[in-house]
Amino acid sequence: MTVSPAAGPVSASALMTPAARVGDSLAQVDTPSLLLDLDRFEENLRGMQVLAERHGVALRPHAKAHRCPEVALRQIALGAAGICCQKVSEAACFVEAGIHDIHISNEIVGPAKLAMLARLARHARLTVCVDHMTALQDLSQALVEYDATIGILVEIDIGQKRCGVQSIQEAVKLGKAAQRLPGVRFTGIQAYHGGIQHKASHDQRRQASEAAAKRTARFVAAFDRAGLQCDVVTGGGTGTVMFDVASGVYTEIQPGSYAFMDGDYGRLQWGDVLTFAHSLFLLGTVMSTPTPKRAVVDIGLKSTTAESGLPVPAGLPSVQCTGLHDEHLLLLAQEESQRPALGSRVRVIPGHCDPTFNLHDTLVVLRNEQVEALWPITARGYSW
Amino acid sequence: MTVSPAAGPVSASALMTPAARVGDSLAQVDTPSLLLDLDRFEENLRGMQVLAERHGVALRPHAKAHRCPEVALRQIALGAAGICCQKVSEAACFVEAGIHDIHISNEIVGPAKLAMLARLARHARLTVCVDHMTALQDLSQALVEYDATIGILVEIDIGQKRCGVQSIQEAVKLGKAAQRLPGVRFTGIQAYHGGIQHKASHDQRRQASEAAAKRTARFVAAFDRAGLQCDVVTGGGTGTVMFDVASGVYTEIQPGSYAFMDGDYGRLQWGDVLTFAHSLFLLGTVMSTPTPKRAVVDIGLKSTTAESGLPVPAGLPSVQCTGLHDEHLLLLAQEESQRPALGSRVRVIPGHCDPTFNLHDTLVVLRNEQVEALWPITARGYSW
Repeated sequence: MTVSPAAGPVSASALMTPAARVGDSLAQVDTPSLLLDLDRFEENLRGMQVLAERHGVALRPHAKAHRCPEVALRQIALGAAGICCQKVSEAACFVEAGIHDIHISNEIVGPAKLAMLARLARHARLTVCVDHMTALQDLSQALVEYDATIGILVEIDIGQKRCGVQSIQEAVKLGKAAQRLPGVRFTGIQAYHGGIQHKASHDQRRQASEAAAKRTARFVAAFDRAGLQCDVVTGGGTGTVMFDVASGVYTEIQPGSYAFMDGDYGRLQWGDVLTFAHSLFLLGTVMSTPTPKRAVVDIGLKSTTAESGLPVPAGLPSVQCTGLHDEHLLLLAQEESQRPALGSRVRVIPGHCDPTFNLHDTLVVLRNEQVEALWPITARGYSW
Repeated sequence: MTVSPAAGPVSASALMTPAARVGDSLAQVDTPSLLLDLDRFEENLRGMQVLAERHGVALRPHAKAHRCPEVALRQIALGAAGICCQKVSEAACFVEAGIHDIHISNEIVGPAKLAMLARLARHARLTVCVDHMTALQDLSQALVEYDATIGILVEIDIGQKRCGVQSIQEAVKLGKAAQRLPGVRFTGIQAYHGGIQHKASHDQRRQASEAAAKRTARFVAAFDRAGLQCDVVTGGGTGTVMFDVASGVYTEIQPGSYAFMDGDYGRLQWGDVLTFAHSLFLLGTVMSTPTPKRAVVDIGLKSTTAESGLPVPAGLPSVQCTGLHDEHLLLLAQEESQRPALGSRVRVIPGHCDPTFNLHDTLVVLRNEQVEALWPITARGYSW
């Protein structure tokens, strides 16, 4: 090679152009980029808020879906009671952004995390899930040490086979301990079943939601008999909220994906009550057209994920996604004339929004095909 | 709830403890964290370097596997000729870190990217793949504009069915144009087949590598007849390098995963010539033990990926990983006595190292179970 590199150090920022700037037209945005269609997003937020209010149920959207404070602030401005997070460091990012009512929908174990949680509880109204007596005792001790208080939701397993206590007896025992121990306060139950959110049939989701609510109601009644009042019964996700709100069991729903509608949720059968529009897209560029029907796009496993299905090409009904490698997305057109051209730009709907957001530092927010804002995905990477 | 949040703004950094600090014992590292066993890693690096030198082939390890300049600098210190990157912004991070010989093993299309690439070429010896005449012409024009030069590797499709020209005639045409156009210089061929890297049987990989080398050799001969000398014939990955180096066709190999050995490569059948040790782990904490045989660990799709198989528990032969959710890893023990206890720490081998690295900002580098260094994964998120 004859290239003679210039001498001396050079900073990446001097070499690098940001992928998008406020005011850019869509055509100016570099790829891959994560796009939010603001009109559709706002419509989705309003739809869910209206549903919750119609049934007198609190909406506490899950921030694990996006990790972006600007999203959460808009949900709260429309009436959401607060947010859910799954991790303590993640919650800290949202507290910093001015959100002070957070349910950590997960079990928190280990001294470093408990200390972080206790410190956070001095700055926000927090609730957290518990499914084990030792974990509850450790939590209580950490909170006492930091002179803080936290609400306890006993997590019950309503069929997901993940976390959560198995029996009513065990749940009541934990609830009583939460009532008794210092630094913690018994607040209610978390009853979430992730698996049933993704059943394709509307009727199957209804039946599964009803069965879950029935099982939850038995726990609530047992707590009641034991003198433990469940101020909060939280659960439900994007796939079942329309049934959960009507169950009379949940005081609060915690959907997240509804704001974006990923490819996985898009494949479900939806009823008349509630529909959401795809508002989240990956923008890519066709970087290779090696055969008449194949196009290769510069989106890969570094900008989206495949565990809930491949991305879905938007606005290209005769083009199918056939593979997703580290930095390549393979498209196959049914006919040669339908193959996107070299250099053309393609939008795809991510298969699963939660881990896709977690791959990006910035959400490119569009209104009328123009970049209206760049929202930092502040809690990206905050999983401890 | 009775919690009274403290008034006033609060910064996340004030609330948050970093997951690891230099000098920490392994027991002090918070979870989930991405760990590198430095002894095994260094042994892997030496093994591959020795193999390449024994066969007189250049080693140009792929940095897409890790996106971490500290890794690349160690490979170069041992004798690697430079590195491969897949994206321009990714390469810029490595140039900033002082690495000045980079092959971009991918097609680069679009004005913003070409301008970025041309600017980068003023600071580093670059080569890049091309598989289309228009793309080559656009590249040449951008380089002339920035008064820079770049080496061209014509990418040929040797069976992967991704990018790359299909016919010898088309390849030679591109090579001749690269020889003729300003700002670019014909340098050789990229012949990479990702799919065959992962065939489980050693013999099947040998046969596939031999077939790929044979096809590549036909292109090299045609270039030669056309007066185009291939200074570089680059290809090969962790699964086939032992055959690629002996083929007499490749001047350069570009493996990446060998330094870490993920779960996917770990499942392959390996011969006597070359073996690599698992050096990369995710550290997790058991946060729930809801049933006698089930343990739930705080690792999820936000800290590793599932598209190449679930993570593999390390040092727990009777424990199987049965699921990976956004922030939950499900473990199932064969016997109750083998289930990890609540609060205990678990190491798992990630299924696929490349996208796993891309989820972390920091690599926690261990020697003798102590944190010797924290290596920034500088190019994490740089995919444009």
